[in-house]
Amino acid sequence: MTAETDIHQMMQKIGRDARSAAQALSCASAERRSHALEVAARTLWERRAEIVEANERDMALAREKGLAAAMLDRLMLDETRIAAMRDGVLAIARQADPVGQVMAEWDRPSGIHIRRVRTPLGVIGVIYESRPNVTADAGALCLRAGNAVILRGGSESFESSGVIADCLAAGLAAADLPQASIQRVPTRERAAVGEMLSMTGMIDVIVPRGGKSLVALVEREARVPVFAHLEGIVHVYLDREADPEKALRVVLNAKTRRTGICGAAECLLIHEDIVDTVGQGVMRALLDAGVELRVDESLRKIEGTQPAQEDDWGREYLDAKMAVRSVSGLDAAIAHVRRYGSQHTDCIITEDQAAADRFGAELDSAIVMHNASTQFADGAEFGMGAEIGIATGKMHARGPVGAEQLTSFKYLVSGDGAIRS
Amino acid sequence: MTAETDIHQMMQKIGRDARSAAQALSCASAERRSHALEVAARTLWERRAEIVEANERDMALAREKGLAAAMLDRLMLDETRIAAMRDGVLAIARQADPVGQVMAEWDRPSGIHIRRVRTPLGVIGVIYESRPNVTADAGALCLRAGNAVILRGGSESFESSGVIADCLAAGLAAADLPQASIQRVPTRERAAVGEMLSMTGMIDVIVPRGGKSLVALVEREARVPVFAHLEGIVHVYLDREADPEKALRVVLNAKTRRTGICGAAECLLIHEDIVDTVGQGVMRALLDAGVELRVDESLRKIEGTQPAQEDDWGREYLDAKMAVRSVSGLDAAIAHVRRYGSQHTDCIITEDQAAADRFGAELDSAIVMHNASTQFADGAEFGMGAEIGIATGKMHARGPVGAEQLTSFKYLVSGDGAIRS
Repeated sequence: MTAETDIHQMMQKIGRDARSAAQALSCASAERRSHALEVAARTLWERRAEIVEANERDMALAREKGLAAAMLDRLMLDETRIAAMRDGVLAIARQADPVGQVMAEWDRPSGIHIRRVRTPLGVIGVIYESRPNVTADAGALCLRAGNAVILRGGSESFESSGVIADCLAAGLAAADLPQASIQRVPTRERAAVGEMLSMTGMIDVIVPRGGKSLVALVEREARVPVFAHLEGIVHVYLDREADPEKALRVVLNAKTRRTGICGAAECLLIHEDIVDTVGQGVMRALLDAGVELRVDESLRKIEGTQPAQEDDWGREYLDAKMAVRSVSGLDAAIAHVRRYGSQHTDCIITEDQAAADRFGAELDSAIVMHNASTQFADGAEFGMGAEIGIATGKMHARGPVGAEQLTSFKYLVSGDGAIRS
Repeated sequence: MTAETDIHQMMQKIGRDARSAAQALSCASAERRSHALEVAARTLWERRAEIVEANERDMALAREKGLAAAMLDRLMLDETRIAAMRDGVLAIARQADPVGQVMAEWDRPSGIHIRRVRTPLGVIGVIYESRPNVTADAGALCLRAGNAVILRGGSESFESSGVIADCLAAGLAAADLPQASIQRVPTRERAAVGEMLSMTGMIDVIVPRGGKSLVALVEREARVPVFAHLEGIVHVYLDREADPEKALRVVLNAKTRRTGICGAAECLLIHEDIVDTVGQGVMRALLDAGVELRVDESLRKIEGTQPAQEDDWGREYLDAKMAVRSVSGLDAAIAHVRRYGSQHTDCIITEDQAAADRFGAELDSAIVMHNASTQFADGAEFGMGAEIGIATGKMHARGPVGAEQLTSFKYLVSGDGAIRS
């Protein structure tokens, strides 16, 4: 199947099947969906040898294609990673079910009682790159929220994702849920992505997971709503009232725990009054940890630093590099983040609660941290069990997107023959 | 100003000014926004003679153009209507402020505390037709939620809306809030609508208020998110266990209280077992109330009915007309509503709670009523003070859209130097 019309036909069928599965799922009990997830988790473990084998085929092809080491690492599955995947699906199986939750209820003088109740969103499309575990995470989260999902993984992980999807399918079968509840696009053809982006009326929201170019493509071309973040240009501001020990600990963790994730800090702003004290200590520790510091002119006196260029501000390194600037105070820090940030996650280190409050109120980031590492920007760390992605848009979902964020709601209104006067 | 490039320039400036006002508003206290609304309400009343005068100019032009009586009625303002407008703005001024509300908060074992806090959405665009009071309602609701708003009213109400907008501006000035917080597009040119629909990055969401052709145009052309409903194809299902008295009262109110609003019932489904009892009584009462009934073959025995054509199912009459069909039971009723409904508001009349629960669970309407009139589908009746519109989409806002639905949120995370392991 390579002709574009064939792909179109195939995707239309996948879309129709997903819609009809979504309708069935919206009436399926929480217990059945939990049961499907538990069986899926068990099956992932039982078929681990088969998953590893499929993964080896993917890895061999990827090496042949000359994929970078970081990409190969993302692609690789071993027993430890399969166990983590299984545990993730199990955690989602045991989460409180969002569907049917009463979000609010109230009476009106007219005699009606109003309940606002969570409902599934419908059909979710997930477009991702090399990580095969997204197949399990996204499939499980969507099912938890009563949604049908169409999964379009990267061509590199095609074989691994196939077996993982089969495990999810086994769960659906065991719980007597429609197989089309979790569909994997069964082709490596890129045309399938374009099809998904224009399936209005069939897909309710698309979640792209991957590098900036994939996300940018989806945001540019999608005709359905998108939950995504393009970049995590994460700032940490060391306020004049920063506690030196917390500053050191949080900045080091925010930058160096893992440099390649979207919650990793990329720019350090230091109040000019503490450059020579707390600031100096933090910069030294970063340099000692092997972080390249690209600093403004006033900080060049710190040995071992590099001069920052204009394009270092607002840059997502995803690497052991950090831009550092001294600022005249809170207002200047806020102005810098507004100008260069990506509304993902930003952080203030201070003992001054009023400063923290203003930083939180005046910045429009999805997540604002106070004396806490920006690497906490993660659905599991937020207690959501897992996340399908992190959104920086302001519509519907924001921050880590878990099962609850994959729901909509409706109003159930009851009366005893109430009429409007 | 008629050249399209001039309109483009003007709208770009309005958009930029709105964005910068939105930033200022996001930091303005609830008290200042309440104060602005109170002064605006007072000013509306003080300048009522001027409003009536401007409205007379609009009315004269509308009569000249030969507008229909219903349109003229929507356009007309007198002291009673201005008082209602003032009271609406005052009610919004006194509503609990949504901005900054903590929607949820929890602790994590890692030592972080997470708060989910309401924030303004940003810039709202409102595109409406002849009702000049939308200027006041929409302006006030947006300001309540800390949003800047761009109002593009119909050309018929141009003069009336102008004075009303001036009254809102007086409120902004009194509270020292940016004038660009509430901007009215100062031209009758239609090109301004097209500009608004493509102002991505400047307008966060567009709310169209008006007839089906306006809403369809906006939904088709908009490149920014839209809160809207195209039609209110409202169904009432009389279940076998319907209470006869409630059935009569609710159906009559749902159909006849006002036939031209989106919550007016358009189709009656009757369980076949009660056609000759409760059903007959309800149909007779509707006929006596002057409602034309377009019925299926099995109901033609009821005197005074008309035969329904296929296009009567799923039709929004907005008039004293109703389609009526007998169905074999709850499943058939649900299937009919799924096929022909518009996911706006649907209703079941029954004393059987299990049937009501299934009707509510299996239908995906924004509002599902049980033993209550569908004419309650309204923000004020829901206790939201007012509404900027009713949405049938599933993303972000659903049902009546009040101030709370015009907000987004962010996560404020605090720790005591917490780092991620």
